[in-house]
Amino acid sequence: MRPDGSAPLGVFDSGLGGLTVARAVLQALPNERIVYLGDTARVPYGTRSAETVIRYARGCARVLTERGVKALIVACNTVSAVALELLQAELDLPVLGVVRPGAETAVRTLEGLSTGTSQAPAKVGVLGTLGTIHSGAYPRAVAQFSTRIEVVGNPAPLLVPLVEEGWIEGEVPRLAVRRYVEPLIAAGAGVIVLGCTHYPLLKSIIAEVAAELAGKHVPVVDSAEATAAAVREAIQAERIAPALEAPSERLELLVTDLPESFEGAARAFLGASAAKVQQIDLKG
Amino acid sequence: MRPDGSAPLGVFDSGLGGLTVARAVLQALPNERIVYLGDTARVPYGTRSAETVIRYARGCARVLTERGVKALIVACNTVSAVALELLQAELDLPVLGVVRPGAETAVRTLEGLSTGTSQAPAKVGVLGTLGTIHSGAYPRAVAQFSTRIEVVGNPAPLLVPLVEEGWIEGEVPRLAVRRYVEPLIAAGAGVIVLGCTHYPLLKSIIAEVAAELAGKHVPVVDSAEATAAAVREAIQAERIAPALEAPSERLELLVTDLPESFEGAARAFLGASAAKVQQIDLKG
Repeated sequence: MRPDGSAPLGVFDSGLGGLTVARAVLQALPNERIVYLGDTARVPYGTRSAETVIRYARGCARVLTERGVKALIVACNTVSAVALELLQAELDLPVLGVVRPGAETAVRTLEGLSTGTSQAPAKVGVLGTLGTIHSGAYPRAVAQFSTRIEVVGNPAPLLVPLVEEGWIEGEVPRLAVRRYVEPLIAAGAGVIVLGCTHYPLLKSIIAEVAAELAGKHVPVVDSAEATAAAVREAIQAERIAPALEAPSERLELLVTDLPESFEGAARAFLGASAAKVQQIDLKG
Repeated sequence: MRPDGSAPLGVFDSGLGGLTVARAVLQALPNERIVYLGDTARVPYGTRSAETVIRYARGCARVLTERGVKALIVACNTVSAVALELLQAELDLPVLGVVRPGAETAVRTLEGLSTGTSQAPAKVGVLGTLGTIHSGAYPRAVAQFSTRIEVVGNPAPLLVPLVEEGWIEGEVPRLAVRRYVEPLIAAGAGVIVLGCTHYPLLKSIIAEVAAELAGKHVPVVDSAEATAAAVREAIQAERIAPALEAPSERLELLVTDLPESFEGAARAFLGASAAKVQQIDLKG
């Protein structure tokens, strides 16, 4: 039996970066509530093999389905890239990822920019983890919205630790961003998708460096907003039952580890203190 | 019943960095063989809570004791810092860590430098993960060898990802190293201990930056060598039974994940291609 509309939405990520997605969903849908699971004991997923990411993703999905969520939002780009179709096939509830909404926004952005010009279309540039880029998920997703637009991706493994270290200003993040953005611009990227939930905290540096390299404004797509819009559409299309009245507690936070840096990280991604936090054990 | 001398030594680390320790042990003890376990599916440990590190350490120790190792070498600084006494109490075989040997070498180095001078003794500077530094393990270990020498530690969370990314030359690693080494030199460190198995790959930059900041040579202690010496001493003191003849296969490598970057990382830390590699599952 499907859960009713008053059930929460389940959101999970390898760590706390997906709170940017949870936040965007809560802002877009004021009646909904969320149970968020951050697998902080095993973060990051982006450097792991596909088999391990799939195993971890199944474990996270099981915890949330056992809590009766009405839909699952995979806020982790790596899991969305590697395991989304599998979770959609295995689970008896709607499962949404972050890759497709980000890809669609990027295509629409490029189409908007190129209207009326006759030059060769720009490409979609994607920054992501090794796992996300190597999965080919973004090229596949972009192909669903445009057969003309190409994708160029670059793994950016240092950006997650820079954000986790809180080193999001100054020369080091700028040099790291330049290392990763340069090949995208050189290959003709006209828009850059932030293919990891950690990267929005570096968004302004990424935009500045890209503009500097390209000699013009390069839009930067944050998939949190795009994903929130996709959830709203799924509710409007009645694929997810809507909540009819605003709940008192809107966010329940489950984590698999509570490191010392937890509170600061949660606040950075959520833009507010985390409310109700519970540590759980995740076998396997 | 204790395993006999022909049994292997067990070495484990959160990932592949501990291969620098395995390599030093194999070089120092030509008759010994090693079963190495790298928990690559859950690396890094250094940002996790103590409870989680303890749980992971117990799992790693169990895998190796079930394989009949005659002694356990904890190559991970974070585990050595947080869980060594606990493993020593729980297990019926010798358990050695990397913190004590590194601390001893640092103290001996400082004592050697200050012979004949009357000025205030320099301090031991330690770079390590958050978990290692916050555990206070290095101050405790140094206190066993000197009551006069103080310890100043600084967490350096970006160095592990820099090494894993292979970004060990140029301005970014230099700036990152400077950020972490500067407070140590300012606080009076006269020697720097590399309190993480990843850091030896940045050793020359760390030495250069430290010398530049201090205006004189600052010795850098790599605990891999010191740990190998401690293992040799334990064998000489008959706390570990010696192997009497050289084995054909000297290193067996177990990992919990085999990411794409595995081969390059193994070679970087081991200085050679990894021989026999097997992926295992580690519950919990």
